[in-house]
Amino acid sequence: MTALVTKLRYCTCFDATSPMTLDSGQTLGPVVVAYETYGALSPAKDNAILLCHALSGDSHAAGVYDNQPDYIGWWDHYVGPGKTIDTNRFFVVSSNVIAGCKGSTGPSSLNPSTGVPYAMRFPVITVGDMVQAQAALLDRLGIDKLYAVIGGSMGGMQALEWGIMYPNRVDKIIPIASTSKLSPQAIAFDAVGRNAIISDQNWAEGDYYSNPKWPEKGLSIARMIGHITYLSEASMMIKFGRNLQEKTDYGYDFSTDFQVESYLKYQGEKFVSRFDANAYLYLTKALSYFDLEKKYGSLEAAFSKTTCQFLVLAINSDWLYPPKQSKEIVKALMKQGKRVTYSVLDSPYGHDAFLLKNERLEQLLEAFLA
Amino acid sequence: MTALVTKLRYCTCFDATSPMTLDSGQTLGPVVVAYETYGALSPAKDNAILLCHALSGDSHAAGVYDNQPDYIGWWDHYVGPGKTIDTNRFFVVSSNVIAGCKGSTGPSSLNPSTGVPYAMRFPVITVGDMVQAQAALLDRLGIDKLYAVIGGSMGGMQALEWGIMYPNRVDKIIPIASTSKLSPQAIAFDAVGRNAIISDQNWAEGDYYSNPKWPEKGLSIARMIGHITYLSEASMMIKFGRNLQEKTDYGYDFSTDFQVESYLKYQGEKFVSRFDANAYLYLTKALSYFDLEKKYGSLEAAFSKTTCQFLVLAINSDWLYPPKQSKEIVKALMKQGKRVTYSVLDSPYGHDAFLLKNERLEQLLEAFLA
Repeated sequence: MTALVTKLRYCTCFDATSPMTLDSGQTLGPVVVAYETYGALSPAKDNAILLCHALSGDSHAAGVYDNQPDYIGWWDHYVGPGKTIDTNRFFVVSSNVIAGCKGSTGPSSLNPSTGVPYAMRFPVITVGDMVQAQAALLDRLGIDKLYAVIGGSMGGMQALEWGIMYPNRVDKIIPIASTSKLSPQAIAFDAVGRNAIISDQNWAEGDYYSNPKWPEKGLSIARMIGHITYLSEASMMIKFGRNLQEKTDYGYDFSTDFQVESYLKYQGEKFVSRFDANAYLYLTKALSYFDLEKKYGSLEAAFSKTTCQFLVLAINSDWLYPPKQSKEIVKALMKQGKRVTYSVLDSPYGHDAFLLKNERLEQLLEAFLA
Repeated sequence: MTALVTKLRYCTCFDATSPMTLDSGQTLGPVVVAYETYGALSPAKDNAILLCHALSGDSHAAGVYDNQPDYIGWWDHYVGPGKTIDTNRFFVVSSNVIAGCKGSTGPSSLNPSTGVPYAMRFPVITVGDMVQAQAALLDRLGIDKLYAVIGGSMGGMQALEWGIMYPNRVDKIIPIASTSKLSPQAIAFDAVGRNAIISDQNWAEGDYYSNPKWPEKGLSIARMIGHITYLSEASMMIKFGRNLQEKTDYGYDFSTDFQVESYLKYQGEKFVSRFDANAYLYLTKALSYFDLEKKYGSLEAAFSKTTCQFLVLAINSDWLYPPKQSKEIVKALMKQGKRVTYSVLDSPYGHDAFLLKNERLEQLLEAFLA
């Protein structure tokens, strides 16, 4: 049960006449950012927290919509009145990343200058571009300085960029289960996922929006690959083992035999009803491109101008962005004499554990936000 | 350079009138097994070693064919005159598994009773069935007892089944980088690979053999997924890091940016020219079904009647069939008082290290075969 009722809002952060300049050098405008807020902005405007979502997330981080009482935000167990991120105290802003498909401008948006969806004519964006759009949103909301930026996975990358790109606009940064750059293995998984989408005949070079069939099979395969990396081997063992799906023996055919197969298939099928294949291409590309060392010369250089406090959290069973990657961030911050707290959360649930309720995470968030 | 010249041979091990009875209860006949031999069978017929190949392997384990001097067998660095598996001493037999696509009867074979390829009408086979076909081949070759059975990955599973199914027909068993059953994670990777094939419009329910287009994209994606699991994260880091492919900066487009992407794409494309998509479905299904505990009640029960010596080898960087899975086999063998030697090979190259030249592996093989 959540007591919070929220609303999806839209803000035009850049218009066509003064577009956004992207890391690629290209421009994009208009740029609409979809967002939600929870709690009230204090008169001093000093209680704002920005939540940044992960690859398949959206702005609906907490509460419910008036007309959808069962559709609860992805971090509702942490965000709300009296909760860890207490909306009686904080004004929480959660926005959908650009290039996504949950209300902010992305490849499925109509390009006003052509009247058709951008599709693959949408410019390639970076995590830095996502953050630039968030900063523009906060400008429109009249928020100069954030109390904190919090995010898991791709959201953690945004949080890190916040500290670096806008050192005077944020006091506390909390990246969870995140990294300063993807390993080649993580790049590889994303690349194969993109390949699956692009190989789907219904992808139609990205211009499928007016077609009866969309590249659902390709997107579903990409999601299944991703999902394997979000879970730990141990959690798969606990959850499914080698259990058969509604069978007592092998089927000796090519239907689904194992529970783990059935689960992944379900995850894949569920995903296509709520996510856009082109957005998946763009967001995974942004993930692969995220590399603070490359962008700023070194991790130390990246963090040299940060003024905020950091709480860096990793998950011990996360093999997608393993703790050693968080440790590299922490080491670089310490070398620069920055204030940083590091903790590895004990959870068997792998990368996606950042989405789950975790007592230790609650304690750490509460203490750090106090 | 290899001094060994070999020849691909075919043996009809079961005919239509006395077909093979499979683990599924179905029958299959005729069953042709493609094989090669290296060295000479001793008059006492006591020097035969069976090599068992992995998922994408074939019978061409060593030497070259007369007309293809550059096409060297996959384990040529271990097998040949004066080599670790010395063909001056041993008569080595290497056969292609049934349900594969390298000469033995499989889904791409013509069903003589219909005149068209079996495709998905081919029965689902198991690792046990592969071994049964190998035993029939050895019958035809007049070999009652094997000096040793050696195999890596899926080949190791066959080696284990040899010790169990034919306890009086083999003296030494060497499974390398293998397992007694796939983890749910490994099942998941294979299931997604199969999904990619089946989702390819050119798969045509498996009946693509007479069509101009085959499910190359799906098979290529399946191979890419597999390939990620064959390498270790560390070896990917050493080999590719985040290096760009013939670029000095990101392309900000959806072409290949990273070397690791390019490598996987190449591996995928290369694979489709040498492997059949339906065979990939059948062989990965056999992998998922392989479970000695399920088949025999427990690992201890599985090994209870074995009479051979075991050399169980794992690779420390193998995360597909990690050393702990080999250790389970060793523990079960020890509980049964069987003769077993266990060693973990130190290699950064992950699962596929069993295919590479490794000095320690050489030493262990030599000592165990002495």
